[in-house]
Amino acid sequence: MGEFGLIDRLTNDIKLVNTSSLKGVGDDCAVMRYRDTDVLVSTDLLAEGIHFDLTYVPLKHLGYKAAVVNFSDIYAMNGHPRQITVSLAISKRFTVEHIEALYSGIRLACEIYGVDLVGGDTTSSRSGLVISITCIGDAPADRIAYRSGAKPTDLICVSGDLGAAYMGLQLLEREKVASAGQKDFQPQFHGKEYLIERQLKPEARRDVIEALEKAGIVPTSMMDISDGLSSELLHICKASGVGCRVYEDRIPIDYQTALMAEELNMNLVTAAMNGGEDYELLFTVPLHMHDEITKLPGINVIGNITKPELGCCLVTRDDTEMPIRAQGWNHMAE
Amino acid sequence: MGEFGLIDRLTNDIKLVNTSSLKGVGDDCAVMRYRDTDVLVSTDLLAEGIHFDLTYVPLKHLGYKAAVVNFSDIYAMNGHPRQITVSLAISKRFTVEHIEALYSGIRLACEIYGVDLVGGDTTSSRSGLVISITCIGDAPADRIAYRSGAKPTDLICVSGDLGAAYMGLQLLEREKVASAGQKDFQPQFHGKEYLIERQLKPEARRDVIEALEKAGIVPTSMMDISDGLSSELLHICKASGVGCRVYEDRIPIDYQTALMAEELNMNLVTAAMNGGEDYELLFTVPLHMHDEITKLPGINVIGNITKPELGCCLVTRDDTEMPIRAQGWNHMAE
Repeated sequence: MGEFGLIDRLTNDIKLVNTSSLKGVGDDCAVMRYRDTDVLVSTDLLAEGIHFDLTYVPLKHLGYKAAVVNFSDIYAMNGHPRQITVSLAISKRFTVEHIEALYSGIRLACEIYGVDLVGGDTTSSRSGLVISITCIGDAPADRIAYRSGAKPTDLICVSGDLGAAYMGLQLLEREKVASAGQKDFQPQFHGKEYLIERQLKPEARRDVIEALEKAGIVPTSMMDISDGLSSELLHICKASGVGCRVYEDRIPIDYQTALMAEELNMNLVTAAMNGGEDYELLFTVPLHMHDEITKLPGINVIGNITKPELGCCLVTRDDTEMPIRAQGWNHMAE
Repeated sequence: MGEFGLIDRLTNDIKLVNTSSLKGVGDDCAVMRYRDTDVLVSTDLLAEGIHFDLTYVPLKHLGYKAAVVNFSDIYAMNGHPRQITVSLAISKRFTVEHIEALYSGIRLACEIYGVDLVGGDTTSSRSGLVISITCIGDAPADRIAYRSGAKPTDLICVSGDLGAAYMGLQLLEREKVASAGQKDFQPQFHGKEYLIERQLKPEARRDVIEALEKAGIVPTSMMDISDGLSSELLHICKASGVGCRVYEDRIPIDYQTALMAEELNMNLVTAAMNGGEDYELLFTVPLHMHDEITKLPGINVIGNITKPELGCCLVTRDDTEMPIRAQGWNHMAE
């Protein structure tokens, strides 16, 4: 049906919900208006065989996740996502129905998070699937949270729990290996549903951004945790010119994550610190906000910012200081 | 050196030149401020083996072209490009020097057109190179030119000349075939330099947008010619609900294009109408602006907009009306 026919089919019934979206798909550019707020732009590229494995990732979930991880980058600036553009390179093994499944996931994410799909590019590839999404969002100038604003004595906070998405990936990989060459294979996911969901259908923490707004709190620094807590802590400390102390016993971990680590004979804290793909928010607030911040549901204070000369350390349960190193989930997977 | 090391190396000395660019590379998002103008966003994805052939496209030229074609989409709305984000998926056969060459072309284009490189994503791919660029630009609300504003009796104008980029591609493909298996092969480009340049190093028509601004002219509709004049005319006519008459003898064609068509025994008008990749501007203005528009350098009036019931036709030199069909350069290449 050709590129234009496919784009028409995928985008013909899109309704724009944000007042900042003036013109969506169908011209040389999308057109937006941001007269009172600053504009945030983030972009992510996902390549088959590197970022996803279609053996166990349904295309609809892939579309959903690809959109949500971009929204997460906008929330990580304390803003709200408003528009996305979606570019796809698709090899011949994908049918129109495959692409529609992928798009249905992207559009579901847009619907749930109130984001407008305003443009993109769809083309062939010689092999595999590549998804490139750019997200545009906004925030009032005085609410934007950069990585660079953390100050000594600030509290270090994280939302939700860590390491579950990584454990979900380990589980999916294990079952993929177990299923190889077997007909009617039934993967063993019972009691591990949370891990699978965290890996295949992550959510971005809009609720946290809304709770911070409502409480009148602007974090001094913020990031989303995509590469792992260790890596993101080092980014914030480097950008802010500070050090940090994070307490092992404060790191929030779900019991399914803990059970899975035991089953796989993996170090739980390493998984939680370096697992990645959690899409939780890591942020800092001034010390005097301790009571306000701990009142917010699902927020844990895991440590504090220090002077730079103290370095970045994890304080273990036996009170030993271990330097934090950025391993990231890519490194761990190797 | 890892993703972060590579990104640092490619982006460490970038200076932002636009006042709308508040924060570039180095946080979860780039941050921009557009308080007086509307925001334009365009995105393009280029895949190796589909959009470019590294046998004859130097990586620096590829980077330059990848950036410029995005700028062209912003100019096509009568706006100015201000920021880009660059996402790359790179297979193992590319070295850091290759990626630096690609980036040097992107950065040269940014420097020449006054655009800030504010973000991106760099990742591995299992095969080949994929380049996804998103461009952000702006325009005063009352100057934006959509595809949908053309009215019957409007003049149809194009900048520059058409078909040369397509002929350049034919020439490069011919020399690639001729060179196969030969050592010290010397391609035959003498007297065809313009065609090669149009294919390998296209420019976006900022000068036309500036001339229109200076003359106080806002086109009633506008597009850039990336898929070929026929295809773009049909887009404008469909979006505007109108027809058109375009005169064969008015279509601007360079003599090198004409000579090459003769040498390859190709129909010259077909090449000019469907060749694509010209990145010239196609636009319409009210009839009464005839004298003003023909005064602008390098602008040709090639026909006029009609009522929709008259359809979209090319009027040949012998006064026959031929319906315009969208072939596009992809179709022609098959």
